[in-house]
Amino acid sequence: MIAGRAPLFAQLVANTNNGFYGQDIISVRQFDRSKLSYIFDVAEEMRHMVQKIGSADLLRGRVLANLFYEPSTRTSSSFMAAMQRLGGAVIPINEVRYSSVTKGESLPDTVRTLECYADVIVLRHPEIGSAQIAADAASKPVINAGDGPGEHPTQALLDLFTIQEEMGRIDGLSVAMVGDLKYGRTVHSLTRLLTLFDVRLSFVSPEGLRMPPELLREVQSKGTPATEHEDVAEVIEQADVLYVTRVQRERFEDQDLYERVKGCYVINPQLLERAKDRMIVMHPLPRAGEISYDVDDDPRAAYFRQTENGMYIRMALLAAVLGRA
Amino acid sequence: MIAGRAPLFAQLVANTNNGFYGQDIISVRQFDRSKLSYIFDVAEEMRHMVQKIGSADLLRGRVLANLFYEPSTRTSSSFMAAMQRLGGAVIPINEVRYSSVTKGESLPDTVRTLECYADVIVLRHPEIGSAQIAADAASKPVINAGDGPGEHPTQALLDLFTIQEEMGRIDGLSVAMVGDLKYGRTVHSLTRLLTLFDVRLSFVSPEGLRMPPELLREVQSKGTPATEHEDVAEVIEQADVLYVTRVQRERFEDQDLYERVKGCYVINPQLLERAKDRMIVMHPLPRAGEISYDVDDDPRAAYFRQTENGMYIRMALLAAVLGRA
Amino acid sequence: MIAGRAPLFAQLVANTNNGFYGQDIISVRQFDRSKLSYIFDVAEEMRHMVQKIGSADLLRGRVLANLFYEPSTRTSSSFMAAMQRLGGAVIPINEVRYSSVTKGESLPDTVRTLECYADVIVLRHPEIGSAQIAADAASKPVINAGDGPGEHPTQALLDLFTIQEEMGRIDGLSVAMVGDLKYGRTVHSLTRLLTLFDVRLSFVSPEGLRMPPELLREVQSKGTPATEHEDVAEVIEQADVLYVTRVQRERFEDQDLYERVKGCYVINPQLLERAKDRMIVMHPLPRAGEISYDVDDDPRAAYFRQTENGMYIRMALLAAVLGRA
Repeated sequence: MIAGRAPLFAQLVANTNNGFYGQDIISVRQFDRSKLSYIFDVAEEMRHMVQKIGSADLLRGRVLANLFYEPSTRTSSSFMAAMQRLGGAVIPINEVRYSSVTKGESLPDTVRTLECYADVIVLRHPEIGSAQIAADAASKPVINAGDGPGEHPTQALLDLFTIQEEMGRIDGLSVAMVGDLKYGRTVHSLTRLLTLFDVRLSFVSPEGLRMPPELLREVQSKGTPATEHEDVAEVIEQADVLYVTRVQRERFEDQDLYERVKGCYVINPQLLERAKDRMIVMHPLPRAGEISYDVDDDPRAAYFRQTENGMYIRMALLAAVLGRA
Repeated sequence: MIAGRAPLFAQLVANTNNGFYGQDIISVRQFDRSKLSYIFDVAEEMRHMVQKIGSADLLRGRVLANLFYEPSTRTSSSFMAAMQRLGGAVIPINEVRYSSVTKGESLPDTVRTLECYADVIVLRHPEIGSAQIAADAASKPVINAGDGPGEHPTQALLDLFTIQEEMGRIDGLSVAMVGDLKYGRTVHSLTRLLTLFDVRLSFVSPEGLRMPPELLREVQSKGTPATEHEDVAEVIEQADVLYVTRVQRERFEDQDLYERVKGCYVINPQLLERAKDRMIVMHPLPRAGEISYDVDDDPRAAYFRQTENGMYIRMALLAAVLGRA
Repeated sequence: MIAGRAPLFAQLVANTNNGFYGQDIISVRQFDRSKLSYIFDVAEEMRHMVQKIGSADLLRGRVLANLFYEPSTRTSSSFMAAMQRLGGAVIPINEVRYSSVTKGESLPDTVRTLECYADVIVLRHPEIGSAQIAADAASKPVINAGDGPGEHPTQALLDLFTIQEEMGRIDGLSVAMVGDLKYGRTVHSLTRLLTLFDVRLSFVSPEGLRMPPELLREVQSKGTPATEHEDVAEVIEQADVLYVTRVQRERFEDQDLYERVKGCYVINPQLLERAKDRMIVMHPLPRAGEISYDVDDDPRAAYFRQTENGMYIRMALLAAVLGRA
């Protein structure tokens, strides 16, 4: 018996016709230009709201279960901030390895348990396909925050959003991707999204880390012009977007190869002297030497703005799947 | 000097006469039928509120210290969601092993420190009696979230609440408990609560894992009819409630015994064909094979609704001890 | 396109002229008597607000990144509660060792990433000077929550605030510091702050753990009378404030020395019989035997009130650097 309590919030009418309400976000393949445009419009509004007043109450009364089976402070912090800046609450579950969640419990059971408490689940898991397994088990929306070598769709969305925000458009641009293009999950997903637009792609990598042939064929089948290179110098002058990736030691079976290539694709001020005045350097971060620190003050260095955009994209997705955008 | 700030919330008058205000929740022995009825009424109202609007502001401005000396993602998430859905905030303290809390500091000192910051403390601790020690030290309410082989009262409350919600009543029911009845803390506490009602109990376990004799005597002394069985088939037809528990490897000194018994008490669709149409299967979760996945879609499978009820019970308890119910 | 959403919060006008707005809190050396007075006034108002209504909405819509590279449940909980009681949200980052933050990423990059999501960063780091490095990298306020053997300014501020709150003044008091004065970071910072006032200082320690000579010279250069002692009995009768510190095993290279001295500076009821009726015993906690438990009920035992004051000081600092005080 709770006497005298008047709910402060009327039951808002959810926008159930936005194409995202109640849906899972598992793969970039779910997105066409129309859906991208919708999410980017909402994300831009989120940016204005945060810069003006800091937070809103769109998701007040909603709870996010932030379920990370492997550590990723960056992504989990971004989702936490996104939910909290919309007035929602977060259950952070970061230490899964030590927790009872893993005491022989299946991922579907864990997800079905968490949706008893939460309205939406964000999942980072080391195994490919795990996000889809979780989504199949859950009746509430699941957002894939990276399933091992699989996908990391919110990263690709924030990357593409950054290109549009920084350059004012995507069509007509020349985008160069640099570094580990074989194992780099982010470049694969971003490449898939870019083929929805009228762009030219350049892939710059050492021989052993070239873009996978099946993805190259996919790009060709979409009619997107693409070239391969081994030296960033070949593309620096025409690139509107230079997307640099980390060369991760753990992706290499051959550690000697890692040592040989890791220093080969470094962006520094000397290289940027030859680049356009109006272009951007992007990086999913964290970096490990691929972009020298003295590039940071160059206005073309967009990677921290890119990080910030991640929060706005995640705000937009959370609001959309919960019917509040 | 904070100029121009008007508190958004007037100081609400606390309900200090609900029998729970300022009290600790340490043991199911604190509860009689009247107190159970009160908490269940509030929990039911919490369910309606969550399903209708998601959250309320009953505990706005209140802070919960969620102090877990051993990992239990399920219970800690349930308390976090409960507090947050009432508008309160949570300090999660999950990694106690690595933290300065344990740098030689006594539990009473830790609790007295946390109550400087928080309004209520939830404690999970591996040692029996620790919740009472904490409650003795603290001037603010302490809720026992499991003290090793001791009690886990909120689990027993949510179990009983689930029986009432699912079956519409508790009196007159036949309740069968299945599995590890020797080490299973949850069945002991639930059994004690059930003796407050007019029920028939069946205890189904392998020989080495029978209900402790002292608890059997306690049941008899209350006049509650109880029988023991070694085969779930003996009770499946008359059971209104089938309460299944996990056989935890860590409770066994003899690992061979564990391997022999773990598969003996599995609930599957074939078994349920013989059960009543209107009965429920419960489990405190996580499960480890005791209930096969193809039971999940049976409407009698109540274990995920039981999990959800845990949040409502904890919302009710938090609101009650803080004088907001 | 978010239709029909009206922001609940108007854009408040920040107090940008409080001398703290947008500033970092790195060292006690930033504070003079005027600034201390300002923060203490706000902290006192915070205490009244918390005791009356629990929380306020001063920092609603603001997000704190609570970045702890080494565990400190006490300090991190205090900052979390402080932010949440002001209506703000927290991103807790406690498990840095296991997280991608440390995957070769520099502290400046981590800080620049977190300020994309948060409005203020609290940093605990094991290396001296790290707080300044973070502050130099960040455009948003950084609050030092301890940089190894460096500073822990919020501890010193809460210590001094406690003296003023408990004794009604600071000028004219006799303050005795007891225990490990060589490695004790808190006594060093508090001593520096006390030299801004008209106090007499007594330093009581074993020979090997005396106050560093350079700090003694600094005290003398300010004209603050100070004496050194090896026995707390020499100072107990005149002390208005007895500040007791933990003798930390990890600070000792010689473990035999630790065993010999650890029991030498214990405060118990017998000792306190000789103390003034109106004096206070302080301790930064956690204690490890330096103050016996049967002192806790003595009204002069101020250490848990001191802990509570930590939350009010941190509320004041957070509000001040964010322009809300």
